Amino acid sequence: MDFNIAIIPGDGIGPEVTAQAKKALEAVADEYGHHFTYTEAMMGACAIDATGNPLPEETLDICEASDAILFGAIGDPKYDNDPTAKVRPEQGLLRLRKSLGLFCNVRPVKAYEQLLDNSPLKREIISGADMSIYRELTGGIYFGEKHLSDDGQVASDGCSYSVKEITRMAHLAFKETQNRRKKLTLVDKANVLETSRLWRRTVTEVAKGYPEVEVDFLFVDNAAMQMILNPKQFDVILTENLFGDIISDEASVIGGSIGLLASASVGTENALFEPIHGSYPQATGKGIANPLASILSAAMLLRHLGLQDEAESIETAVEKSLELGFTTEDLKPENPLSTSKVGDFIADYI
Amino acid sequence: MDFNIAIIPGDGIGPEVTAQAKKALEAVADEYGHHFTYTEAMMGACAIDATGNPLPEETLDICEASDAILFGAIGDPKYDNDPTAKVRPEQGLLRLRKSLGLFCNVRPVKAYEQLLDNSPLKREIISGADMSIYRELTGGIYFGEKHLSDDGQVASDGCSYSVKEITRMAHLAFKETQNRRKKLTLVDKANVLETSRLWRRTVTEVAKGYPEVEVDFLFVDNAAMQMILNPKQFDVILTENLFGDIISDEASVIGGSIGLLASASVGTENALFEPIHGSYPQATGKGIANPLASILSAAMLLRHLGLQDEAESIETAVEKSLELGFTTEDLKPENPLSTSKVGDFIADYI
Ligand SMILES: CC(C)[C@H](C(=O)O)[C@@H](O)C(=O)O
Ligand SMILES: CC(C)[C@H](C(=O)O)[C@@H](O)C(=O)O
Repeated sequence: MDFNIAIIPGDGIGPEVTAQAKKALEAVADEYGHHFTYTEAMMGACAIDATGNPLPEETLDICEASDAILFGAIGDPKYDNDPTAKVRPEQGLLRLRKSLGLFCNVRPVKAYEQLLDNSPLKREIISGADMSIYRELTGGIYFGEKHLSDDGQVASDGCSYSVKEITRMAHLAFKETQNRRKKLTLVDKANVLETSRLWRRTVTEVAKGYPEVEVDFLFVDNAAMQMILNPKQFDVILTENLFGDIISDEASVIGGSIGLLASASVGTENALFEPIHGSYPQATGKGIANPLASILSAAMLLRHLGLQDEAESIETAVEKSLELGFTTEDLKPENPLSTSKVGDFIADYI
Repeated sequence: MDFNIAIIPGDGIGPEVTAQAKKALEAVADEYGHHFTYTEAMMGACAIDATGNPLPEETLDICEASDAILFGAIGDPKYDNDPTAKVRPEQGLLRLRKSLGLFCNVRPVKAYEQLLDNSPLKREIISGADMSIYRELTGGIYFGEKHLSDDGQVASDGCSYSVKEITRMAHLAFKETQNRRKKLTLVDKANVLETSRLWRRTVTEVAKGYPEVEVDFLFVDNAAMQMILNPKQFDVILTENLFGDIISDEASVIGGSIGLLASASVGTENALFEPIHGSYPQATGKGIANPLASILSAAMLLRHLGLQDEAESIETAVEKSLELGFTTEDLKPENPLSTSKVGDFIADYI
């Protein structure tokens, strides 16, 4: 089959890891007789440097014309810690999510047996943990009205949600739950927030259509504790944008394998796939960045395009590289492989 | 000296643990020749049941007339999971904070050597961690305008902060930092929120008055990861209300000793002291609740009243009970002491 894939390498280690994911896609294309056309586009700090705009029009056009988007990472320290900066790399990503309507972020978090010793948590706490976090991505306080008073003394951010926004998210999460262990946990702060109470009411309503799914409600502060005390209790977590940002990042480190976690941001028309890790500027250009999360995001991309076997072939190759210890230094301090060598191994194995 | 102490036992295990804290206060009064007058007041689910109001006028009056407030816990499952409930126990606490202007919540989190094995984290990650979290408590999205559209389709919560609110918090946090390891971390989401950018600007301004303090900025999602990956890096954390709720609860479990953590909520006129743990309804009346956090909140109360030595005498007694294993079943599954016996031991030791 033929597919158009937009590639946004982004900043920091983004380009290096995305290059390995592309190798994996090429290997799949060869092996299964597909044809992928790649179009590269700019976003983030590199786009600001080149064009002044973190999300150039052209990038948006390329993404809209694509069947799926493979994204690396964005962010550059020179734009952080400058609260007065008018243009920031992150705006590119936020605008892309909003413009393409990528309202549903999915982050599977799994403790890989081979990597349990890397976890800051004790083995017995983390072994067997396997959850999928559904985070709303185009609403809430991220996209509410922002205001700064003329005298600079008072700032505000609005947070709002509609039944419609919550309902479409909830259906996607419930559907996934049906394919898993049939437990859905809504994370909110319904004892304080009106928006959270709307989430609780709406999810309770949607739940009626999925009677085989057990629904739990957890306040976000308690969820932040439970994630550490007993991560195995979670199957599918459903939550709003800001809570999802925090809880999914927390979840991503408990397995000791943030270098292996990929995520999908799905809309009705398009979808974007990226590693959970950031642009990791300190590692840029050194050949030490772990490409597995990016490679696994390519697998998610293939699955999204309906190419199940192809996706699995990548996942199997990744399992193999872990098994054989053909990995970068974050996972294997002695005799690690370089970013590019890991990519080669995966492509060869496929 | 003479002091008026308001006691709000609250719900669940609140009354049991507060009773032990009162024993400790009485032991201190005896030993050091002070005179404490206690006035009990209702708040939370028990107050709703008795009066229909989670924070009766009388409670507010008693608190206002007191030198300090000792509080247990609130919350009852019968009010959770009912997003339509008009009156909720938590409203009592939120209104009390606001009415008394208790704008600064302080949560010291320390890994007790004797309890390291209870932690979900590996010993080497957590051993030596010692931080103090400064959470703004009367602003932000907790107290912003809430709205639900007439048709029930759209809900919203407003979040706002002023330079004045941030400045007074920041000074308290910087002063504490000077007495500690001189590192302050502001946790925010300045890459997305206008209020966070105001926090960053204002804290940068206040920092100029404390040149010996090193200031760090951390996005809240990253903070949620760092808290697990390397909690020892934190000295004083300063943050807004909602982020503080989440991050401090996360921090409270990493030491394996949530049953030992106390917190202070301080205003210009008054201050309230409470355990970090909740009302733990499953344990109510069984004599198994750990009273140490409540007892340690009595120590914080004494320190707030200027009674340093007295506070230390409680803290020493608590260290002793840990050393000797005179503790409840959460810390010592075999041959535990009851809630009340632990309280007796502490009082005797003082
Ligand atoms: C870069 C930032 C704006 C973004 C977010 O907060 O959504 C990131 O943390 C993420 O989770 O993708
Ligand atoms: C009970 C609830 C409203 C409260 C809060 O969110 O502030 C609690 O979680 C706390 O941290 O004291």
